[in-house]
Amino acid sequence: MEYRKIKDDDDEVQEDNDVASDLESLKGKSHTVASSNIALATLGGYTERTTWKRKGVVTCALTILTSSQAILIVWSKRAGKYEYSVTTANFLVETLKCALSLLALTRIWKNDGVTDDNRLSTTYDEVKVFPIPAALYLFKNLLQYYIFAYVDAPGYQILKNLNIISTGVLYRIILKKKLSEIQWAGFILLCCGCTTAQLNSNSDRVLQTSLPGWIMAIIMALLSGFAGVYTEAIIKKRPSRNINVQNFWLYVFGMAFNAVAIVIQDFDAVANKGFFHGYSFITVLMILNHALSGIAVSMVMKYADNIVKVYSTSVAMLLTAVVSVFLFNFHLSLAFFLGSTVVSVSVYLHSAGKLR
Amino acid sequence: MEYRKIKDDDDEVQEDNDVASDLESLKGKSHTVASSNIALATLGGYTERTTWKRKGVVTCALTILTSSQAILIVWSKRAGKYEYSVTTANFLVETLKCALSLLALTRIWKNDGVTDDNRLSTTYDEVKVFPIPAALYLFKNLLQYYIFAYVDAPGYQILKNLNIISTGVLYRIILKKKLSEIQWAGFILLCCGCTTAQLNSNSDRVLQTSLPGWIMAIIMALLSGFAGVYTEAIIKKRPSRNINVQNFWLYVFGMAFNAVAIVIQDFDAVANKGFFHGYSFITVLMILNHALSGIAVSMVMKYADNIVKVYSTSVAMLLTAVVSVFLFNFHLSLAFFLGSTVVSVSVYLHSAGKLR
Repeated sequence: MEYRKIKDDDDEVQEDNDVASDLESLKGKSHTVASSNIALATLGGYTERTTWKRKGVVTCALTILTSSQAILIVWSKRAGKYEYSVTTANFLVETLKCALSLLALTRIWKNDGVTDDNRLSTTYDEVKVFPIPAALYLFKNLLQYYIFAYVDAPGYQILKNLNIISTGVLYRIILKKKLSEIQWAGFILLCCGCTTAQLNSNSDRVLQTSLPGWIMAIIMALLSGFAGVYTEAIIKKRPSRNINVQNFWLYVFGMAFNAVAIVIQDFDAVANKGFFHGYSFITVLMILNHALSGIAVSMVMKYADNIVKVYSTSVAMLLTAVVSVFLFNFHLSLAFFLGSTVVSVSVYLHSAGKLR
Repeated sequence: MEYRKIKDDDDEVQEDNDVASDLESLKGKSHTVASSNIALATLGGYTERTTWKRKGVVTCALTILTSSQAILIVWSKRAGKYEYSVTTANFLVETLKCALSLLALTRIWKNDGVTDDNRLSTTYDEVKVFPIPAALYLFKNLLQYYIFAYVDAPGYQILKNLNIISTGVLYRIILKKKLSEIQWAGFILLCCGCTTAQLNSNSDRVLQTSLPGWIMAIIMALLSGFAGVYTEAIIKKRPSRNINVQNFWLYVFGMAFNAVAIVIQDFDAVANKGFFHGYSFITVLMILNHALSGIAVSMVMKYADNIVKVYSTSVAMLLTAVVSVFLFNFHLSLAFFLGSTVVSVSVYLHSAGKLR
């Protein structure tokens, strides 16, 4: 596995420091600290609180951004068909994320000075793994065009919930992190609950998917899960490294691979009608939103993990539906209420089932 | 609460014996028995094994009987409309259960002789609570005629899943037995999973149920849950009392209340066309099946509890659907698969979440 190689190559001592600071947090939690340790323990408690706060903030940000993302999509659909080339929009999203990371970095450099952890320059050993997630996403997006030969669009929406399971499995295998049995039960329920919430009268058609369709859906779920888990592995490999530098390199390769996608998929349209053909105010809003959610995903990977990301985006999907009731006069189905209840229980189980 | 009164009136010492035998079982489980206790502990282990075996057998019997019951109903519907009076069939079910209990008792008297625990004669104190479950069921069945003014039949099938929640709540309040938080999560999921499995394109209509419809559905769920929990309280009140004697008295009152139902609902039909009008071979099979499932329910109440009963009948519902695929060429929906998965996880959580 590639991740093991990263681990083996690791020449940082920072990880040990991180373990030490984790231990401090635990000490702060146990309330059985000898008086000589009180100062350290207090520091530990403080670190723990900040960790939790940061985790909470980035998770909430991701949830809200993902919800508004879905609402923008509904809005843009109501406004009419996509007239612009999706690949150019994706390229701009990556460019904007890159620019925002650089902007954040210049502020940090101004305040803290340039250090080993926040300098932009990198080594081949550090940077060589950064193109992999972008390459995986590109490959997945290309496959997406072929899966529609086997499944219709609503069916694909349902099959995409397989991502939840693939992320859990790859998180376990690649990152070697354990979930308790109760948390696994919660994860299966999350997948069932999200799918239930999306059920409509045509959903049964997905059961008629042919074997090649299923295989492609599973491959795409694995690619998507792998890209997510691999990104977490890269970002967590060097915990002290500034997240904006890590993001910068991720997004530089994202720009490169999306440039390839423009050439492969939309070369004619861009050559004939121009790069920005069909852009509207809502397109700009969507690009802005996608860029911010992308950064939020990176932050969740840095300060929490893929499991939190999956829960956060799933809850966002339900929030979107509730908000749509007010915005677009949506009618919520019985299936939606049942699915939401199952997802809520799943969130509870994930927290109640934490390994001690 | 009526159950407290039963508890207070209790003049048996048997309950203490039962606690002692429970303790023995626990000893057998803990594997930390001093050598002088080995004989007792072995006995305890044996008791525990028999308890588990008996619990397993009655639960499986109930599941199989409930599944075949639903299949008989589908079969009889395919064969045409009900031509007979349902109240007369219910009366015959009670009579048959009564007869079967008596038959079992005569065999026991022959083998073990007549004891305090298996004699048919009873006291006013023992028998006075036995009419209550039958009265509650009669009241619920009468209400059933009125609820259809507010909900259609498929909607009522969906609302009946509220029984799961009401049984759990009343089990906690009346029998004062605790479920762990994980088990409560499982119980909510059982309700959601069963409802999801029954979803079809018309299910959303149930959301338009008016307030009086909801209130009636909740009252009926409470009546049904209360009848079940109260039956368990009666049967468990005197653990050493032979279950066939307890059943006999329950069913005698069942006969009486069903006779009242015949007079209220089907007096004209019975008077004009006769008691057995419209009976067919399948009617006889259904009566036989209902009688056996009724006895299985009593056994589950005696040797397990209402929670096991609810799980058993819910799993039976799913089994019925699977069997129907082969028997009647049913098509299973995506909702059915999702609901079944949620129910399976729920069964797992009920067992994994056991209070230590």
